[in-house]
Amino acid sequence: MTYCVGMMINRGLVFMSDTRTNAGLDNISTFRKMKVWDRPGERMLTLLSAGNLATTQAVVSELEERMKAPEEREPSLLAVPSMYQAARLVATTLKDVIDRHARAGQEADSAFRATILLGGQIEGGPPRLFLIYPEGNFIEAGEDTPYFQIGEMKYGRPILVRAYDPALSFEEAMKLLLVSFDSTIRANLTVGAPFDYHLYEADSLTAGRQGRIELDDPYFRKLTDGWSDALKQALEQLPPYDLDAAPGA
Amino acid sequence: MTYCVGMMINRGLVFMSDTRTNAGLDNISTFRKMKVWDRPGERMLTLLSAGNLATTQAVVSELEERMKAPEEREPSLLAVPSMYQAARLVATTLKDVIDRHARAGQEADSAFRATILLGGQIEGGPPRLFLIYPEGNFIEAGEDTPYFQIGEMKYGRPILVRAYDPALSFEEAMKLLLVSFDSTIRANLTVGAPFDYHLYEADSLTAGRQGRIELDDPYFRKLTDGWSDALKQALEQLPPYDLDAAPGA
Repeated sequence: MTYCVGMMINRGLVFMSDTRTNAGLDNISTFRKMKVWDRPGERMLTLLSAGNLATTQAVVSELEERMKAPEEREPSLLAVPSMYQAARLVATTLKDVIDRHARAGQEADSAFRATILLGGQIEGGPPRLFLIYPEGNFIEAGEDTPYFQIGEMKYGRPILVRAYDPALSFEEAMKLLLVSFDSTIRANLTVGAPFDYHLYEADSLTAGRQGRIELDDPYFRKLTDGWSDALKQALEQLPPYDLDAAPGA
Repeated sequence: MTYCVGMMINRGLVFMSDTRTNAGLDNISTFRKMKVWDRPGERMLTLLSAGNLATTQAVVSELEERMKAPEEREPSLLAVPSMYQAARLVATTLKDVIDRHARAGQEADSAFRATILLGGQIEGGPPRLFLIYPEGNFIEAGEDTPYFQIGEMKYGRPILVRAYDPALSFEEAMKLLLVSFDSTIRANLTVGAPFDYHLYEADSLTAGRQGRIELDDPYFRKLTDGWSDALKQALEQLPPYDLDAAPGA
């Protein structure tokens, strides 16, 4: 499994992904699921992927091969004129890879499926964020739905729903995402640290701050403990159910 | 879908279930998913169910028919000597119903599957709580895992994991469960209010306080709003991520 989030805030785009992949619970490894490309001053693209690792690695490899030989194999992500075209290109590549793997093997294409988040900005347009389905179609984040999750999204969703705010700073967005990731790794063994992040500053058209948070990162450990206490306190603040005033008394 | 929780606390057993059933998103109805039987002073049993409604209703009907004619169709839930025997009886009945429906129809038995929580106490034994699988086997809650969830359990799990405490009062347990249910109905349309609850006092051997919380229940509305604010405050209390001190700087 996997857990990735892409989020639009006023400051720009925030991406975070876990690094655990597994083929069975007894066969886990660490792989980076975030890919960042940029041409400083012109464009920045970040891709997060969930699903079959062979599929997502093939998609990234094909996208990168096209970048290296732009004259032969147009278009490439470094040449398309808009984020919409970039999303179309990734979507087509994803669908092609899945179709090819499914035809080659005996299995239904469900085994080869993957889902991709693509966010970025290309000169002349605003920052945009897309969720790309294995069927080769996609949706775009907007004001009503300013973030996307892929993979094991349920455990970490309630805190995002409650606490997301477009005015978040990068530091606050990191905190929110780390709480969401922490809730997820506590419940699902197939999502695991370290977590990769990328903070893209709107209109910078250049890759922003990137890094990796390990499980023993001092801030993450403090956050984990602090969040348990804070949650308990938050719950304590609220009045207990009044059984005397309740229906069914 | 469905969301039900059964929880062991020092005070006794706490049960809560939603009431939404759906056959497609455009065909939803309200059904009670909690069943309480008791023989005051001797035993109390509570059953919560998730899954195919025809299956769970058939299971409850068969269990109740046996109670009405105990001499003909032993055993009945009102006659078995222990909670373990009660769980076995429910498990066998569940498996039989699923097998019968699957044989009668054209479909695989997956369409007819259901999962059951059974909690209660029978004179001479402690309160016990079981999670019964459609395969007809079951597991029991204990100190390490003192609560079970069935149905759409993921959204409402993080708060249970963090805030469960065996020393909770009934009023606090109600608050905790309502927060967990609120997180779930915000994320999944196929789980919905009203919520049924039952609070069983250990060693009372008699059904305890029962009731139904509607979506417009004043306490629930206050809790929902208060929880949003409390969560935001809890998050604000924690220090934001320090990008200057972070790895990847």
